[in-house]
Amino acid sequence: MRLGRFQAAGEQRIGVFEDGKVRDISGGVEGFTDALCRPDAVDDVGGRSFDIEEIRHFPPTTDRNTIFCAGLNYEAHAEESDIDVPEWPLIFMKPPRAVVGHEAPISYHTEVTEAIDYEAELAAVIGTPGRHLAADEALDYVAGYTIFNDTTARDLQFGLRVGDDEMLDWFSGKTMQATTPMGPYVVVDEIDDPQDLAIKSRVDGETMQDDTTEMMVRSVAELVSFVSSRVRLEPGDVIATGTPEGVGAFQDIILDEGQTVEVDIEGIGTLRNRVEAVSK
Amino acid sequence: MRLGRFQAAGEQRIGVFEDGKVRDISGGVEGFTDALCRPDAVDDVGGRSFDIEEIRHFPPTTDRNTIFCAGLNYEAHAEESDIDVPEWPLIFMKPPRAVVGHEAPISYHTEVTEAIDYEAELAAVIGTPGRHLAADEALDYVAGYTIFNDTTARDLQFGLRVGDDEMLDWFSGKTMQATTPMGPYVVVDEIDDPQDLAIKSRVDGETMQDDTTEMMVRSVAELVSFVSSRVRLEPGDVIATGTPEGVGAFQDIILDEGQTVEVDIEGIGTLRNRVEAVSK
Repeated sequence: MRLGRFQAAGEQRIGVFEDGKVRDISGGVEGFTDALCRPDAVDDVGGRSFDIEEIRHFPPTTDRNTIFCAGLNYEAHAEESDIDVPEWPLIFMKPPRAVVGHEAPISYHTEVTEAIDYEAELAAVIGTPGRHLAADEALDYVAGYTIFNDTTARDLQFGLRVGDDEMLDWFSGKTMQATTPMGPYVVVDEIDDPQDLAIKSRVDGETMQDDTTEMMVRSVAELVSFVSSRVRLEPGDVIATGTPEGVGAFQDIILDEGQTVEVDIEGIGTLRNRVEAVSK
Repeated sequence: MRLGRFQAAGEQRIGVFEDGKVRDISGGVEGFTDALCRPDAVDDVGGRSFDIEEIRHFPPTTDRNTIFCAGLNYEAHAEESDIDVPEWPLIFMKPPRAVVGHEAPISYHTEVTEAIDYEAELAAVIGTPGRHLAADEALDYVAGYTIFNDTTARDLQFGLRVGDDEMLDWFSGKTMQATTPMGPYVVVDEIDDPQDLAIKSRVDGETMQDDTTEMMVRSVAELVSFVSSRVRLEPGDVIATGTPEGVGAFQDIILDEGQTVEVDIEGIGTLRNRVEAVSK
């Protein structure tokens, strides 16, 4: 089943996506996180059906959730970044206001950055609250999977000088308003092995990243377990699992206004967004 | 006026704190952020009055907000940390689940850390949404001020090895569940100059930090302006402004289970919390 959030006929709704249609199940659930908690129960909630062309997608999380992102979690990407793989998972956060849905613009805040980059990632969405989860039970707390494009302002991420050194600035580089696409929906109960999925990104149709989730340094289960050792995970929380090699920064590619970024993940679909300059 | 969130007689409430009492104004506002947006209107909302001893304090923010924290924002603290002052503000975030109210325990997660430290900080709480604010208008978007104890797991913050280097781990060091006291309330319309306040911390009555907010590298206004250049600020968002010198880490002091940390800020009051070990 594919669960998501969308707007149609002027209202925000929760829906089940199937065959080019979205069935509005808002009437049968107490919000999106409730749907994530009990997908079996909502599968046969009836409701108005919309054509996919009529809707506006919202990211499949809520403004009460937290978005945890792993950095440097594919060895080849750590190598291209010229940084070793960290001893334990390196996690940074994005506030919910940084994320946008499928087909929404990626905001390019030209007032403060000149170098936006893409990062294709698999993201796990939590369905059951959990704390101190062992890795071998962690996937039981995941409702499903979605696609995440962890866009980054590279000039800010790599540009912060601290005396004679540089410090990675995860805040300025990663959390800007409406920059990070996520969606189109959460795929629930369809993906048997999250470590065996093809993952690709394209810019204006040209393949930029082409790898598999098997190449992660820490598995989805290990990342969920790690984050739960720090905070209690809540339904709707997102754990983005890092990007494979092939980001723009190390090929001297930066995104331009008007370019389209697509991320494909096997078993989920395609997340497509266009870069749009925003001055003020 | 002093606005806060609390629990009394089994219910979560919003209140005005005055003279050892709290007046419940929940019936006259649409949630805590609404009260922050229009403090003049809520000042004379009537409601049941509770003695301060009867209530449980909650942190004066909400689970839809974001908590932005400045690192290394007092020169003497940057010096004791042996890190230069960054070229632009270094911001990290805490999720709302990391914060607790006045008199609530500071969770010491002994499963994952052996070194919890205190950090006394002044925090601004946003009252008006804003983006790309100039520093000279930024304080108009602040509803008021509160006290923040940016506790830190020092062994995790400083302990992440990346090859032969170490990387600061803001996530593990700063965001753990229920570790960060904030409150007791937001002081609205009483503080004329946030850069002229005495700020102190004590552990079991012994003074650890004793400074003034005049010593900040970037002013509250500059920090609010900076964060608003990255994301839109929302009512209830918190901007913690960094800690003065005198944290435990550089004096070989770590907090023990059962110790009490108090932070005083002139014109606001005292935030008091006891360290409590939590295993699982």
